[in-house]
Amino acid sequence: MRVTQFFLSTLKEAPAEAELISHKLMLRAGLIRRLGSGLYTWMPLGLRVLRKVESIVREEMDRSGAIELLMPAVQPAELWQESHRWEEFGPQMLKIKDRHQRDFCFGPTHEEVITDIVRREIKSYRQLPVNFYQIQTKFRDEIRPRFGVMRAREFVMKDAYSFHVDRASLEDGYRQMHDAYSRIFSRLGLRFRVVAADTGAIGGTGSHEFHVLADSGEDAIAFCPDSDYAANIELAEAVASAAPRAAPSQGLEKIATPGQHTIEEVSAFLKIPAHRILKTLMVVTGDQREYLLLLRGDHSLNEVKTGKLFTLNQGFRFASDAEIRARMDAGPGSLGPVGAQIPVIADRGVAAMSDFVCGANQDGFHLTGVNFGRDLPEPVQVADLRNVVAGDPSPDGKGRLEICRGIEVGHIFQLGSKYSTALNATFLDEAGQNRIMEMGCYGIGVSRIVAAAIEQNFDERGIIFPLPMAPFQLSMVAIGYRKSQTVRNAADNLYRELSEAGVEVLLDDRDERPGVMFADMELIGVPHRIVLGERGLKTGNVEYQGRRDAQARQVPLQGAVESIKSLLWGS
Amino acid sequence: MRVTQFFLSTLKEAPAEAELISHKLMLRAGLIRRLGSGLYTWMPLGLRVLRKVESIVREEMDRSGAIELLMPAVQPAELWQESHRWEEFGPQMLKIKDRHQRDFCFGPTHEEVITDIVRREIKSYRQLPVNFYQIQTKFRDEIRPRFGVMRAREFVMKDAYSFHVDRASLEDGYRQMHDAYSRIFSRLGLRFRVVAADTGAIGGTGSHEFHVLADSGEDAIAFCPDSDYAANIELAEAVASAAPRAAPSQGLEKIATPGQHTIEEVSAFLKIPAHRILKTLMVVTGDQREYLLLLRGDHSLNEVKTGKLFTLNQGFRFASDAEIRARMDAGPGSLGPVGAQIPVIADRGVAAMSDFVCGANQDGFHLTGVNFGRDLPEPVQVADLRNVVAGDPSPDGKGRLEICRGIEVGHIFQLGSKYSTALNATFLDEAGQNRIMEMGCYGIGVSRIVAAAIEQNFDERGIIFPLPMAPFQLSMVAIGYRKSQTVRNAADNLYRELSEAGVEVLLDDRDERPGVMFADMELIGVPHRIVLGERGLKTGNVEYQGRRDAQARQVPLQGAVESIKSLLWGS
Repeated sequence: MRVTQFFLSTLKEAPAEAELISHKLMLRAGLIRRLGSGLYTWMPLGLRVLRKVESIVREEMDRSGAIELLMPAVQPAELWQESHRWEEFGPQMLKIKDRHQRDFCFGPTHEEVITDIVRREIKSYRQLPVNFYQIQTKFRDEIRPRFGVMRAREFVMKDAYSFHVDRASLEDGYRQMHDAYSRIFSRLGLRFRVVAADTGAIGGTGSHEFHVLADSGEDAIAFCPDSDYAANIELAEAVASAAPRAAPSQGLEKIATPGQHTIEEVSAFLKIPAHRILKTLMVVTGDQREYLLLLRGDHSLNEVKTGKLFTLNQGFRFASDAEIRARMDAGPGSLGPVGAQIPVIADRGVAAMSDFVCGANQDGFHLTGVNFGRDLPEPVQVADLRNVVAGDPSPDGKGRLEICRGIEVGHIFQLGSKYSTALNATFLDEAGQNRIMEMGCYGIGVSRIVAAAIEQNFDERGIIFPLPMAPFQLSMVAIGYRKSQTVRNAADNLYRELSEAGVEVLLDDRDERPGVMFADMELIGVPHRIVLGERGLKTGNVEYQGRRDAQARQVPLQGAVESIKSLLWGS
Repeated sequence: MRVTQFFLSTLKEAPAEAELISHKLMLRAGLIRRLGSGLYTWMPLGLRVLRKVESIVREEMDRSGAIELLMPAVQPAELWQESHRWEEFGPQMLKIKDRHQRDFCFGPTHEEVITDIVRREIKSYRQLPVNFYQIQTKFRDEIRPRFGVMRAREFVMKDAYSFHVDRASLEDGYRQMHDAYSRIFSRLGLRFRVVAADTGAIGGTGSHEFHVLADSGEDAIAFCPDSDYAANIELAEAVASAAPRAAPSQGLEKIATPGQHTIEEVSAFLKIPAHRILKTLMVVTGDQREYLLLLRGDHSLNEVKTGKLFTLNQGFRFASDAEIRARMDAGPGSLGPVGAQIPVIADRGVAAMSDFVCGANQDGFHLTGVNFGRDLPEPVQVADLRNVVAGDPSPDGKGRLEICRGIEVGHIFQLGSKYSTALNATFLDEAGQNRIMEMGCYGIGVSRIVAAAIEQNFDERGIIFPLPMAPFQLSMVAIGYRKSQTVRNAADNLYRELSEAGVEVLLDDRDERPGVMFADMELIGVPHRIVLGERGLKTGNVEYQGRRDAQARQVPLQGAVESIKSLLWGS
């Protein structure tokens, strides 16, 4: 493609609305343009990237044996009423009335539609398992759409749904999708991690997330560099210390700590490290019970894991300052479990503490040398309440955890029979008995991948696309293309030869200053670049530079096609 | 692809809802399944066809220099308010409110969005002309969706929009699209015709439709086999007869025609051919004027052409029986222009008549031997009021017209400055002056093409897809695949070799009776078929039959790949 026949539209500055680097760079590079809140046009350059991602997703889904179809975006309410999600899904679902005042939605996902198709089309175990997928436009009416295509309202998703005779077949299909997803993100040239995940609102059991690693990622991931273990930090288990609790060696003492509220303040004031100080939190459950939660001062509460503890109590919330004072006769900065009249739940890390510090339930005072069993009863329950931190033992016993950040781009679920039961998707088994199908679902945020790839791959000059998803593989900057016949001939010939060799070349044939052309080609993230100029051509050379290379190198024009092919793809 | 690894779902009978043959066959062949009114899932087999159409459209659009992008389906109301189409578009537009009660629509077309992009991105004549296109899902809330994907509510469309510095450039771009469309429909293997068209509601001037020819087509097309002339019958001009009006040779006579109302009845009763009898129609214009329209008895009124005559009178309607009787003192079957007190407009064909028959404005009586100038004044206006018929002279003077029927699958428009003015899409010209862009738009009904192709290509056994859009190019029916090792080996080898040679083969490896497999492969429209069986293999042969061939022929297994390639693609 020649730049003069394409449509490049780069910006010096990103619009103020953009916060995230990928959003800024996608706007500056002209990959996308905003139409409205959470609505983006994929401009010609961006669409090339999106299509490359789509192709790799499609190829690996096909390879896995999944079969592509295309369901409507607009879905009738009746199916969602059958699954009880018409109300449950909440305001993210964009509801629509047609001209006859019938209810529809712009599909946020397709479990109901595919289950409806399958219950009509599939009657026998002989037709199972089957996995249908589509690459299609979805809409979720986010309350605050932001970050460009990272969290848009209208977006492109690959969604797949598998149906099985039993759990074993579902697990088998699930593994195939796990492998297909791993191939997809590997082929895209992205650093990623597969993590055990909470199943969230979709329901069912067994779920993994695929995260593109990037410092700006919304999710924290705990992983073990010495094993396969990886989990969203929301789920990662903090295992109990192997070392037993030490015997008490100090006496209980009440010390004035005027104006010291936070762990940091108390630690600095008493010159006692945070891991020897208790963090005491008062919570109230949905059914109006109060608890004190104890954590080590250097640890933080994991609300997802804690919430599961209180599932039967309809969840929990933090007590207000007023509630705390009413019950404990002290402010939140002076709480402690000694003498407390409400049940105490301790984190596993706390259960191993001795001679520790805690609030005295009196403003301005703390207790030191506190010990369970002697100064207060053992907690009513010891549980995993905290977020893991780097250095914690891996739950699989194979090393120590590290923490990184990621952007969720894929999610696989074993749904089980949630939807097949609700919609009565049954089949006749070998014995002629009617049985409910088992079901899995598998999503990839196709448009989000483009943003995630940029969060992982950029520098101060712009985007650095991995080769498999780059809009063009090679840029050719022809300096003086409009003025020098020599440059023009050499550029046109090399462009033609490279194109014929299957290289996707963007030839910058504009009448622009070299600096402008270089800046544009770097900004839009083309991973390889050739520069042709009169001076180099006199000595029979062109200049090659990889997007991450510090320096350019000379490449003889004679045989340049072969050199470039081996630079791009290896020899 | 092997049938056992694909998803075929054929039906013996089409659901009762289907009227049109393409709708019936698409359901029976399992190309589509209905989700709701005007909403269809493209099943795996159908999606393969749709994607092939998309690819050919994309390749030819790219070849023409158009640049692909992808705009959102959901569009903010504000842009439509700027173009005044938010109200004008009518109930076909699916309006949506988001969670913040802001107005959006599911885009029925994208003139507003692309013009908004262009007015932001394009500032200079140097960036023009440009042509942006997308292949995208549209929604039009048809009042009575029917005929399957032929007139669905959600459908796939290729829409392109070109922007120009002036009219000459627009006409140039328009011709390029005309040529690209012709290449697209030729490459798809469809018989089609390009016709001059009315511009309808989209506005602007200069427009052609592309019709796939089929007896079931909704549109009648007049064309000249000896020239390029073709027009939607709504527009086709009926030229005046070259022969002058003959002099009167009969006297005026009033004849009783009791109970004879229609032209056919009067013609039979009087034994006078219909072309010598006047058809007299009374109409009322929007501004309440009455006219008599005169046509030859064997001609029919063209309401589109007639409507244009009354543009300044706010259109017309037919007078009611009561209005006719009140004004003319006779029923509609006895009207005539002689002695009428309201203005008479005659079709060009009538102006050449002499010694004709017409109603006597008295029930049960007709006049014969009527002549203009002698028995009644010349009409106040002679105009082109009628539909052309086969045998009429072609308006280009190059032969005689024929009539065929077609299905509109493409439409190109010279919009001019309608949208660029409304949205103020301007550029700086060479002289530094701000000017409004000229604009064209170009649509192809991608999903409709699949249905149209079937309307044109089917027989009693099912669909006959043209090779370029067939879901598979070749079916291979292996008789006894599950029982005979010989058949299995031969089939697997040939399948592998053909696949490697780039042939898209569907291998029927099911454990089904041959009749079932043959019927399925014919129904789904695979254009070429190979049958392998033990008997044939013993003599070293397989059987080949083209979908339209009356008989199969033997092809030696040795060298079968080359033979089949040459049968598919020529040698």
